[in-house]
Amino acid sequence: MRNPIVAYIAGAMAGFVFGCLFRFDTYLAKDRGGDSNGGGTANQRLIYVVTPTYARPQQKAELTRLSYALRLAGNIHWVLVEDSAKPTEMVSSLVKQSGIPFTLLNVETPPEYKLRTRDPSWLKPRGVLQRNAALHFLREKTSPEDDSVVYFADDDNTYDVRLFEEMRLTKKASVWPVGLVGGLMVERPIVIDGRIKRFNAVFRPDRTYPIDMAAFAVSLKLLKNHPDAVFSLNVPRGHQETHFLTKLLSRVSELEPRADNCTKVLVWHTRTENTDLKLEKRLAMPSNQGIEV
Amino acid sequence: MRNPIVAYIAGAMAGFVFGCLFRFDTYLAKDRGGDSNGGGTANQRLIYVVTPTYARPQQKAELTRLSYALRLAGNIHWVLVEDSAKPTEMVSSLVKQSGIPFTLLNVETPPEYKLRTRDPSWLKPRGVLQRNAALHFLREKTSPEDDSVVYFADDDNTYDVRLFEEMRLTKKASVWPVGLVGGLMVERPIVIDGRIKRFNAVFRPDRTYPIDMAAFAVSLKLLKNHPDAVFSLNVPRGHQETHFLTKLLSRVSELEPRADNCTKVLVWHTRTENTDLKLEKRLAMPSNQGIEV
Repeated sequence: MRNPIVAYIAGAMAGFVFGCLFRFDTYLAKDRGGDSNGGGTANQRLIYVVTPTYARPQQKAELTRLSYALRLAGNIHWVLVEDSAKPTEMVSSLVKQSGIPFTLLNVETPPEYKLRTRDPSWLKPRGVLQRNAALHFLREKTSPEDDSVVYFADDDNTYDVRLFEEMRLTKKASVWPVGLVGGLMVERPIVIDGRIKRFNAVFRPDRTYPIDMAAFAVSLKLLKNHPDAVFSLNVPRGHQETHFLTKLLSRVSELEPRADNCTKVLVWHTRTENTDLKLEKRLAMPSNQGIEV
Repeated sequence: MRNPIVAYIAGAMAGFVFGCLFRFDTYLAKDRGGDSNGGGTANQRLIYVVTPTYARPQQKAELTRLSYALRLAGNIHWVLVEDSAKPTEMVSSLVKQSGIPFTLLNVETPPEYKLRTRDPSWLKPRGVLQRNAALHFLREKTSPEDDSVVYFADDDNTYDVRLFEEMRLTKKASVWPVGLVGGLMVERPIVIDGRIKRFNAVFRPDRTYPIDMAAFAVSLKLLKNHPDAVFSLNVPRGHQETHFLTKLLSRVSELEPRADNCTKVLVWHTRTENTDLKLEKRLAMPSNQGIEV
């Protein structure tokens, strides 16, 4: 390397590469979220977030705000399952635009199992076939080495992005409190000396796992080791979680308490009111003619 | 530069600088939102987002998901105004943790103007004194050169981050559709040849500005030029917007239509159900004893 021009070019190349590497580190530091409030990196353990969803006036709004929590949460794969005979244009374009890696599935609930508009929301099980479609996808289409976490996130709940950091620690099954559910401000496991001793649930406290769908996450490997763990159209109200978890675990003490020994609320069972559309009939044509809402 | 070592070092330095500049560009590209779906930069025009908020079981959940939209929206200053005699610990720590630049204010609504739990939400005006406190702050505490935009964002609505890009274009006052409000799927101005000709509102269509609080943004300079534009505890239901806008504008045609001539829905008037807490009384102590929900 006697020629100064060659030396200069070689130096420039080395410098450029170093400059680029320097950039790479900075990205990671930024992505790790200096505000201790979420922000993801590709080094984070992956979470498959399973969201059953169905058509209703507020659907796009709900999926929009859920997508923002997932964008900020970091390394997520969003498994969206529509309750429909075929994928809808709205959900397809929303999930693509979100920038979140995703799988879009659909399966229609048979009419006899579907809620009618005026039925109370608890009358029939919801999201059963959709969650099962996601379970089938996760068991069949992921690699045997995939060490990810699986979480069932309904589209109307509210998620603190720090919840996702908690569930990334899951060995077999994690559990944490849920706010605004079961007739209580917070429904949660009671932890003594780092082990779950009981639950504070008042609604059907006789259930083995008296917790909400939003209260737990499981490892993908555990799911694959127990292929019979699925949801059912034929279990009583509030028993889906117990029906599912009893296939995966042999006792309550196997649940791993998260969120400071189940003392922090990082997810809320918020429910959005059905939209009052009574004035639509006074219009000559629908207000949303040609407009996606 | 005869010495190859000197040449190499010079080249390395030049390459390093170029590598760093390359990074800088990439950051900007990333921050500008390569996914066309939000993501902010400091070069964006600032928006003061005014949010009146009051204590209720779902308050923290609502503020949490609103904060995520604002984090993704880019250059925002969040003016949160609590309906309380003093700032609350929950809201203070939430807004600090959000990482969003903020101003936290508080003013209590007198009891005779406050809704009781079982009152319908429209019975009394809401957020009036809180929005006025924010207006006072904006008029008194910002610089005369401040060319920002002001938007009133209630804590229960749902915001698409692209809405904030629309409002950054505001000259005097911008307007756009709102989903799920006024008894309709979408309430909106009807635009013909780029000008607003009328509104599709069915609820009190006789109002000069028959639009929701979420439907418009105004420039800070316009606010300062009309110091008498405030909200009032003594106007009929649904008339706050008209009461306020008639002080700022002389005619409807001054409103600047955004969101593709008011054909895109980027904000939804979602309402969260009041939480059913009837089972709390069966517990010896509150479920949230010592726990922030």
